Amino acid sequence: MASIVLLSVKQTAQTKAKRCLGSRLKGLAGAGGPSATFLPEREWLSKGLNLRFMSHGTAGRSAAGTTRRGALAFSGAAAVAAAAVVGFLANANHFQRAEMATTIPQKAKKKKEEEEEEGDIAQRCRGFMSVPVTDISVLEKRKDEMSTKMEMLIMETQAEFCKALEEVDGGTFKVDKWQRKEGGGGISCVMQDGKVFEKAGVNVSVVFGYLTEEAAKQMRSRGKVLKGKDGKLPFCAMGVSSVIHPKNPHIPTVHFNYRYFEIEEEDGSKQWWFGGGTDLTPVYIDREDAFLFHNTLKEACDKHHPKYYADFKKWCDRYFYVRHRGETRGIGGIFFDDLDSPNQEEVFNFIKSCARTVVPCYLPIVKKHLNDSFTQEEKDWQQVRRGRYVEFNLVYDRGVKFGLATPGSRIESILMSLPLTARWEYMHEPSKGSREAEMLEVLRNPKEWV
Amino acid sequence: MASIVLLSVKQTAQTKAKRCLGSRLKGLAGAGGPSATFLPEREWLSKGLNLRFMSHGTAGRSAAGTTRRGALAFSGAAAVAAAAVVGFLANANHFQRAEMATTIPQKAKKKKEEEEEEGDIAQRCRGFMSVPVTDISVLEKRKDEMSTKMEMLIMETQAEFCKALEEVDGGTFKVDKWQRKEGGGGISCVMQDGKVFEKAGVNVSVVFGYLTEEAAKQMRSRGKVLKGKDGKLPFCAMGVSSVIHPKNPHIPTVHFNYRYFEIEEEDGSKQWWFGGGTDLTPVYIDREDAFLFHNTLKEACDKHHPKYYADFKKWCDRYFYVRHRGETRGIGGIFFDDLDSPNQEEVFNFIKSCARTVVPCYLPIVKKHLNDSFTQEEKDWQQVRRGRYVEFNLVYDRGVKFGLATPGSRIESILMSLPLTARWEYMHEPSKGSREAEMLEVLRNPKEWV
Repeated sequence: MASIVLLSVKQTAQTKAKRCLGSRLKGLAGAGGPSATFLPEREWLSKGLNLRFMSHGTAGRSAAGTTRRGALAFSGAAAVAAAAVVGFLANANHFQRAEMATTIPQKAKKKKEEEEEEGDIAQRCRGFMSVPVTDISVLEKRKDEMSTKMEMLIMETQAEFCKALEEVDGGTFKVDKWQRKEGGGGISCVMQDGKVFEKAGVNVSVVFGYLTEEAAKQMRSRGKVLKGKDGKLPFCAMGVSSVIHPKNPHIPTVHFNYRYFEIEEEDGSKQWWFGGGTDLTPVYIDREDAFLFHNTLKEACDKHHPKYYADFKKWCDRYFYVRHRGETRGIGGIFFDDLDSPNQEEVFNFIKSCARTVVPCYLPIVKKHLNDSFTQEEKDWQQVRRGRYVEFNLVYDRGVKFGLATPGSRIESILMSLPLTARWEYMHEPSKGSREAEMLEVLRNPKEWV
Repeated sequence: MASIVLLSVKQTAQTKAKRCLGSRLKGLAGAGGPSATFLPEREWLSKGLNLRFMSHGTAGRSAAGTTRRGALAFSGAAAVAAAAVVGFLANANHFQRAEMATTIPQKAKKKKEEEEEEGDIAQRCRGFMSVPVTDISVLEKRKDEMSTKMEMLIMETQAEFCKALEEVDGGTFKVDKWQRKEGGGGISCVMQDGKVFEKAGVNVSVVFGYLTEEAAKQMRSRGKVLKGKDGKLPFCAMGVSSVIHPKNPHIPTVHFNYRYFEIEEEDGSKQWWFGGGTDLTPVYIDREDAFLFHNTLKEACDKHHPKYYADFKKWCDRYFYVRHRGETRGIGGIFFDDLDSPNQEEVFNFIKSCARTVVPCYLPIVKKHLNDSFTQEEKDWQQVRRGRYVEFNLVYDRGVKFGLATPGSRIESILMSLPLTARWEYMHEPSKGSREAEMLEVLRNPKEWV
């Protein structure tokens, strides 16, 4: 088996992030360098070839000088150690689905101050669930680089979310810091069988390495020549991802994932992009919850582009679709990938806004239903929905599929998203007019909530 | 998305089964004919291209005159309505793995009498779980054709197995007879939440139709020209498949599947082959059970070829492998595909021997452990193993993958194989020296049991 993933890339003028990538890899190169093996799943290739690239702006692009887009075959093994980053690599085919605006929001500059206000790196690290994957001294040295800003953001998001969940549950996350021998590592935080949460996982990963010669050859065979330095294409990928399965069927499951990717060509030009999303999977419809969740996301999106929410909401409904059931996994939220315009700072600020909505999107819903009583029938229906969640994650989720197909990836972090318990009933069909039937109706026909 | 499955085919002289296929399709052709849509999952293609064909004999082949083998792109949509038949279409890549003998067993002729002894078709049908998919009058008219013999065998196997399970459980199977609008249908028997069985499914499907022009075009692009009649390639596929998940963790899960496939080219020459297997998935190792199970299969195999058991046992261990866990799904059994030599009668007799071992392989084990007591820890370990079963079925099983990707397939029959309940614990690892660790050790290093 040999497989590849296609990612959209944009060649811009050399960014300051470049220095970071180069230095991350220096030590490795000296030691022969970790090499990314080329991976299976040929289907991704065919899908990738049909990519239609879109953007919410062009100003960043023209500012960057010559702009070129293409499909990049990327080594799975190199990029993935956990689903957070995996999702990154695997969602490329969704470009073709989103219909994006072509005008640019010009109101996105007053963020400089925000960054300054965040303070000293070492001090911020003290609040994390673990020391970061990258040494603090290295982060401090490169504090202006995007990879550093993003690593700090994902660590902060993990800590903020875990602490909010611990507070409401009373339990404690188990923290595993792990290393990836090819470069990088991650921090997996899991709370299992708590008072409120059946299984809660919040994962960070920061991985880097090189594309193999094999990858480059595959590239050429599809008409795309990617020029690596000494035949090597350095990359760096990082992300935070989380799935929370509560016990009470009146508290929905939530999932989010925010990620960043960099790749460097021979001439030092850098390809980079962001992806992510947050989506909700309730067992029963609560319109108030749905409004709160979507509206919080919409407000975050609206600060950056008037079309983001509508477009990314649509993308989310399409991505989290259990095709063989003809249902979405849940009531959606936002989902996007390959975001690289209008410019790196502005996209990062959007990602930051999204990451900071995770707690306000979800915790009010958890608290509202904390003491809701429920019947065995409601619990059974939750278990059936959990079964569908498993079906989506194992059959369709590109991050999971890619991770499972990647030798050496950390399976426990990838499958952390599966619920503690699930159920498959033959020919289960809710009775007409029931709340279960109402839920199914929404999954079969996604709604607008705000 | 466009995908195909590659199947090995053998062009032999026209067989008497041909008439059957032709007549099955006659009515359909008159009505414009059902057309098989071409399906996704490109990975199958790449695997298929590497097929290495093997055989346990050549006499049948030379007897059949000119012999040609090749890869045939086959329309999933047309072939599949349930996992039984799906598996059929999807296991082609395992050829490359089995190392098969090249000598022929010549002791396989005393079966003629067996067939005669089975009596009148209408009378035999009275013992089935439902009337067969094909009209009894049609079966009677074509009683010497292989498709009729096989349909009778799979119906008999279903009935025999369901009745044995009902007897031990005290429950009753729910029987669903369903039709496939493109041609054919099936009979799904499911018993859920019984006294002994958490979920027991025994499914028969008999489907037929045509390959599309699209399929033929894809063929040519890979150097294989398949000449259909008026551009159409009629096919017929049928099988019986079953998965039984008991409640007691000391009673293992069993799975079996036996299937037959026919395809007809323009000149009337017929490709046909059989596939199947039976395998056991215990939660704890019981060496006596493992011996009984494997030895019963070995005795059935040995009647037909001295190498069948060893080769098909190996094939089984390789097929039911959860790659991302580095474990087999269970303790194996036998698994094979593309069996088309030494001749149709002899292969059918082998399939019949296998199908008839299903009850003696499994029921003694069920009865032995019927009243075993168990702890909550043992039940939890069973649930964790069920989670792995789900992982195999959703991530790797080609029948399931193919079925899910096939528009119009009967999802409930395909996913009937999933357990009623399953569990995913983060970082679950049995303690050293435990019976759970013993089980894992066997799954990581498949053993010889006889």
